[in-house]
Amino acid sequence: MKIAIAQLNPTIGDCCGNAQKILEAAQHAYAAGARLLLTPELSLCGYPPRDLLLNPSFVEVMEITLHKLAMDLPSDLAVLVGTVKENIKANANGGKSLFNSIALLQSGKVQQYFHKRLLPTYDVFDEKRYFEAGLQANYFTLNGLDIGVTICEDLWNDEEFWGKRSYTINPIADLAVLGVDFIINLSASPYSVGKNNLREAMLKHSAIRFGKPIIYVNQVGGNDDLIFDGRSFALNSKGELACRAPGYITDLLLVEYDELQQDLLKSSIAPPYECEEEEIWQSLVLGLQDYVRKCKFSKVVLGLSGGIDSSLVAAIAVEALGKENVLGVLMPSPYSSDHSVNDALDLGKNLGIETSIVPIGQLMAEYDKSLGKLFAGTEFGLAEENIQSRIRGNLLMAISNKFGHLLLSTGNKSEMAVGYCTLYGDMNGGLAVIADVPKTRVFSICNWLNRNKKIIPQNVISKPPSAELKPGQVDQDSLPPYEILDDILLRFVQMHQSAIQIVAAGHKPEIVEKVIKLVGRSEFKRRQAAPGLKITDRAFGTGWRMPVASNWVGVKSTSSVQEVITNIIGNG
Amino acid sequence: MKIAIAQLNPTIGDCCGNAQKILEAAQHAYAAGARLLLTPELSLCGYPPRDLLLNPSFVEVMEITLHKLAMDLPSDLAVLVGTVKENIKANANGGKSLFNSIALLQSGKVQQYFHKRLLPTYDVFDEKRYFEAGLQANYFTLNGLDIGVTICEDLWNDEEFWGKRSYTINPIADLAVLGVDFIINLSASPYSVGKNNLREAMLKHSAIRFGKPIIYVNQVGGNDDLIFDGRSFALNSKGELACRAPGYITDLLLVEYDELQQDLLKSSIAPPYECEEEEIWQSLVLGLQDYVRKCKFSKVVLGLSGGIDSSLVAAIAVEALGKENVLGVLMPSPYSSDHSVNDALDLGKNLGIETSIVPIGQLMAEYDKSLGKLFAGTEFGLAEENIQSRIRGNLLMAISNKFGHLLLSTGNKSEMAVGYCTLYGDMNGGLAVIADVPKTRVFSICNWLNRNKKIIPQNVISKPPSAELKPGQVDQDSLPPYEILDDILLRFVQMHQSAIQIVAAGHKPEIVEKVIKLVGRSEFKRRQAAPGLKITDRAFGTGWRMPVASNWVGVKSTSSVQEVITNIIGNG
Repeated sequence: MKIAIAQLNPTIGDCCGNAQKILEAAQHAYAAGARLLLTPELSLCGYPPRDLLLNPSFVEVMEITLHKLAMDLPSDLAVLVGTVKENIKANANGGKSLFNSIALLQSGKVQQYFHKRLLPTYDVFDEKRYFEAGLQANYFTLNGLDIGVTICEDLWNDEEFWGKRSYTINPIADLAVLGVDFIINLSASPYSVGKNNLREAMLKHSAIRFGKPIIYVNQVGGNDDLIFDGRSFALNSKGELACRAPGYITDLLLVEYDELQQDLLKSSIAPPYECEEEEIWQSLVLGLQDYVRKCKFSKVVLGLSGGIDSSLVAAIAVEALGKENVLGVLMPSPYSSDHSVNDALDLGKNLGIETSIVPIGQLMAEYDKSLGKLFAGTEFGLAEENIQSRIRGNLLMAISNKFGHLLLSTGNKSEMAVGYCTLYGDMNGGLAVIADVPKTRVFSICNWLNRNKKIIPQNVISKPPSAELKPGQVDQDSLPPYEILDDILLRFVQMHQSAIQIVAAGHKPEIVEKVIKLVGRSEFKRRQAAPGLKITDRAFGTGWRMPVASNWVGVKSTSSVQEVITNIIGNG
Repeated sequence: MKIAIAQLNPTIGDCCGNAQKILEAAQHAYAAGARLLLTPELSLCGYPPRDLLLNPSFVEVMEITLHKLAMDLPSDLAVLVGTVKENIKANANGGKSLFNSIALLQSGKVQQYFHKRLLPTYDVFDEKRYFEAGLQANYFTLNGLDIGVTICEDLWNDEEFWGKRSYTINPIADLAVLGVDFIINLSASPYSVGKNNLREAMLKHSAIRFGKPIIYVNQVGGNDDLIFDGRSFALNSKGELACRAPGYITDLLLVEYDELQQDLLKSSIAPPYECEEEEIWQSLVLGLQDYVRKCKFSKVVLGLSGGIDSSLVAAIAVEALGKENVLGVLMPSPYSSDHSVNDALDLGKNLGIETSIVPIGQLMAEYDKSLGKLFAGTEFGLAEENIQSRIRGNLLMAISNKFGHLLLSTGNKSEMAVGYCTLYGDMNGGLAVIADVPKTRVFSICNWLNRNKKIIPQNVISKPPSAELKPGQVDQDSLPPYEILDDILLRFVQMHQSAIQIVAAGHKPEIVEKVIKLVGRSEFKRRQAAPGLKITDRAFGTGWRMPVASNWVGVKSTSSVQEVITNIIGNG
């Protein structure tokens, strides 16, 4: 039996457009002789639909679209479509009013619904906000084969693989007990570095453990901060790759289940990526491209400072949208070094994009004049530095408003973490392209990008990073070297380590405490940041939910927890 | 037996400081003869701690603080403290690693833990992100009395009161079956208009239904967007008020359980509010005050346009912080009318605050000059309007940076809904004070405020609202009258009505469609907005989780859902 995997790129909320894509995939799959078509989780509305699910009319449109789609599909083809289904017992028995479901469409009708059993509610996932968990193992019979149906997280609770359980049940174990012939998983699993290797390793373990072939379908495309990398694949019952779709593009992949061998046959296998830099690059390109397209923009504008961050973002934008759709604006100040302008122009030339120069010295002088009376007797400081950044932010937004270009912001994760960025200044933009890329990784991506051909000018990579908001300023005046900063941030932000643990790993106590304090203090900036493309397991985006007005800066590295407490409420 | 209710105002994450507050309340309660002290939900860390809970060191500090606090408390007094407790079976059995718990402290030790059973996961609540639900009915015995323990949401599932179940179990019913003498509820229930009446009505229903006295303790204070109004109260077994704490301030309230009558005796009852405007005013004052204080600021700055929104925010700030801590900045442009400046100065005089005038005409001209080449041949439009707003935003941030004043933003909910505000312009600020107050309510609060004494100048209230970004502009050039706009928004945003339903309620189809489209299109602005104080059941804050790059603008009001679908995928 031939099975087709539709690796689709839906637009959130566009049920009709998404249904059309499923229909087209079905027509191709049918023409290629497939009996079964798989589509990603919630393929009808796109994942994640978030609070659109709270609108009854949204759910109603999905329901009607689904039934209409069933009528339009080739009637001999069984099609699995991701949709929501009303929990009709919710009011009487309690529980959420919807299920996250898969509908089996065949012969012009919805034949059956399968409900997701494990509902991720961590990081960027909020599924218990919307959904009730399904209680039964899901399977159906086609051509005499029993096919187990799982939805994304349902396969992420193999306690042998993880060394612990996240949920009480393991749906794949239930299906193995029922003796299904193979298992399919319909997913919308967002990208993070190395995640596709993790998925394959995890499902390989499960395939071998239960002796069942597994077909894994993933959504592709960017939806706000989340990038879905695709890379759908199938494993035979020995856990060997039977097929793998390419990443970052839509695809229709065919795989054959051989009834005699009771296993999947090997078909097309897309190669792995050469390195993490390539993977991240592809992710950012797709994330930017889809955000611009799905927000109905076609062109972008960004400020080019001659620094490495804006250079990388410009290169990503050119790859995503074409050089004719990228405008770079240079906004030198009296504090800008000559190389800033030259490096930015070199980059513009390398990329072949239009550049424009708008000097800001006169505007700076005018702000000084306007604020002269109020600021009389004060020293040049943070206020004046920020004014420069905000003048640039204003100019870029004016260009964005005037010509309908989406403004890209260019800050990296290291800066966002410690607040080395100006709110309403360089943070301005509709999308923060590299907001989840640590500075050290920005360097390694640029070096990788230059492997065959100079795209990022060498001077941009080799000069010391600087915000150039006062004469002779470099980042390392205020921050530890980026290798150290990024390691501390990785431990604190992503690995949830305490100051004591980070110091034990070899960092200086005073630097660790300073960094942790800066992260806490910068929460108000991140709260107002543009959506940033997520490439790590812990991004400062929809999955980062920190209080602003709090008084927790972590435990001091130099004293034990016990001492800290005793000192403070010791006199009770 | 005397029971003390500590209506506390914790700072999120400040476990030591919060423990100190509990200790002080315990000493007062003990001195007043109480045997039992009640504190709010998660009183040790403050509610909501959000992702701080993901740091193991944070949980460790809470644990150690709790045990230290137990040792310091008067040993004869039983004290219930809100804390988290590790779910030690999580790794083996699945489930979240923490419980949302109440610890019973007595005789120098933690005697017992009670775990919250119903975990709200909707709107601003994310409890299933962090917590596992407790499985048992919670009670303990003190002085021979069996006392049922519930935590916040545990009492919000009376299916008789609501006409439906939200959860399978009803903890109060379980406790009634066990025959406890009375029930306590330790809450952190955020304010929304009319919520305190709802709480009393709901628990009155439960008290009568189960024939049990209920003592309800609520947190007080502002934590970012959420305002906790306090208003702790107790009901006797007939559902009559035994006591009620005042709203918006910390309090230690005593109530007596009479063993002979087997009921609570009547004690101090704070009066209800005269109207919703008073309630909202008090909420906003507390929300602003606590945000400023807990972020460690003391002074605020805001732009005064002479309009009603900034006038109201200035009045709230003066009430919250004192007139000496509020700086109003007037930034007239060539398009500002004379009355703008005069009205703003009148307001400043009425409030007794310092005002400063920084005209922006020269800066506007300088931006025009800087952008002259790029913008050559284009018409004055949105870009130029926004430049004015962003100049003002920059000036205010410069003042904020220079003098360490927190900038308040002054946009109302109606504007935020339809995007009638400038990102990086008038949206700038650390706190959006009235971002959840619809424009019609802004008017009614100002009229209420003026009931005894003119605070808001009459001309500010009576002139037609205008952004004054071009000559002769008024809001109603681009928007429907606010009475109509606010009703459509109430139905669409808060009541989840579809266009069809809103038209059926009497609104014009073309206006409804325009408003719904504007709401959808403005998502990118709201995503970057400052935290806004929540006063309705559906605010554009932490509980509003909408995709930006989506293609859902609601169903057209003029055609049925069926028609819409047929038109789009009809040719499949």
